[in-house]
Amino acid sequence: MTSDPHSAEPSAPPSDRVRLRRKPDRGRYDRATIDTILDAALVGHVGWVLDGQPYVTPTSIWRQGDRLYWHGSAASRMVRATKGGAAVCITASILDGLVLARSGLDHSVNYRSVMVLGRAHPVEGEAETLAALQSFVEHLYPGRWAELRPATPNEIRQTTVLWTDLAEASAKIRADGAHDEPGDETWPAWAGVIPVSLVARTPVPDQHVPAGMAAPSYLPPGGMRFER
Amino acid sequence: MTSDPHSAEPSAPPSDRVRLRRKPDRGRYDRATIDTILDAALVGHVGWVLDGQPYVTPTSIWRQGDRLYWHGSAASRMVRATKGGAAVCITASILDGLVLARSGLDHSVNYRSVMVLGRAHPVEGEAETLAALQSFVEHLYPGRWAELRPATPNEIRQTTVLWTDLAEASAKIRADGAHDEPGDETWPAWAGVIPVSLVARTPVPDQHVPAGMAAPSYLPPGGMRFER
Repeated sequence: MTSDPHSAEPSAPPSDRVRLRRKPDRGRYDRATIDTILDAALVGHVGWVLDGQPYVTPTSIWRQGDRLYWHGSAASRMVRATKGGAAVCITASILDGLVLARSGLDHSVNYRSVMVLGRAHPVEGEAETLAALQSFVEHLYPGRWAELRPATPNEIRQTTVLWTDLAEASAKIRADGAHDEPGDETWPAWAGVIPVSLVARTPVPDQHVPAGMAAPSYLPPGGMRFER
Repeated sequence: MTSDPHSAEPSAPPSDRVRLRRKPDRGRYDRATIDTILDAALVGHVGWVLDGQPYVTPTSIWRQGDRLYWHGSAASRMVRATKGGAAVCITASILDGLVLARSGLDHSVNYRSVMVLGRAHPVEGEAETLAALQSFVEHLYPGRWAELRPATPNEIRQTTVLWTDLAEASAKIRADGAHDEPGDETWPAWAGVIPVSLVARTPVPDQHVPAGMAAPSYLPPGGMRFER
């Protein structure tokens, strides 16, 4: 074992709450794996609680260093319910494949996911909020921030950026074929994997983009490729 | 207004908890819209609470009539924490596009999402559990169930199927171009939409599929198409 947080070696779960119990072979706790999945996910699902009821809000997420960020309108219920340090769970999942086995109960999916348990903190201050939003745009579209109309104080005031640390997180990965029960291999049903992935299509410029202005070279984001 | 639950007309929110406050024009409460999004989503994110901490578990979901289903190992923490009627939130979200505006704060995404608030109930009984699992496989792969090795009582016992009703649900949709601030249209940055979608790749049969057995006609599922 190593103490390097960015080692690719398996590491121990940081808490019992994020330890994988049912399929421990799918669990990974090293920051390199966790960061790679968070950085590839365009969307996260934020779990929060209000009056005993859990809510799950889908939203863009982005990571910078040891912080995972998301944002919302300063007036939103999610922001108001969590920004005072509420317990949250942010889960990012990426579907990679559909797994067809010869028994219905052995069907599965391939995926990469991360679950982060933490407390929500607001980014405080106009300059700090602006810097966080810049890191969001630059994460998706490297080089774009400098091309944009600068943000106004009013725009920044209407937005709350929230963050949590990554101290209590785990990754879960399945990347495999069908696991049939012994003896099922000869059952005459097709079995295997259907790989799936998110792809980008041809950019659609709005009516104010001048004729001849090409789509920027930083598109598409997230390691996607354009198809058709 | 109409009382037809499958009308495409906008309808009233079933509760204040699922009423869209911030962007009410994105909210839809009719069952036809809710069902269409749930049926198109391959994955849902289940929010549940244990000792005050929210957890968000990504899992396959499927709908049949007025019930939304998901499943887990009978021994899993999520199943054990929720099956006694715990409050849950199941959110399904489908990313449809990345929206680039001329101000960083006006960037957005196009999506379809559904949030369901309810209580988790286990499907009771071996026959009922089997029927629910059959509806799951048939939802993804119509016609496949009859081709499979029949499930054994032991397989069924190890799986718990959970469900909640759809009485308290809302859909949220954004399907639009960039909304620039007045005056920003002439700022010299590219703006528009990058459509994104989940696609399926060529099926990969396992080593026991006989040579010449084609991938089944019910692939790929979910209205996806095969690419490359």
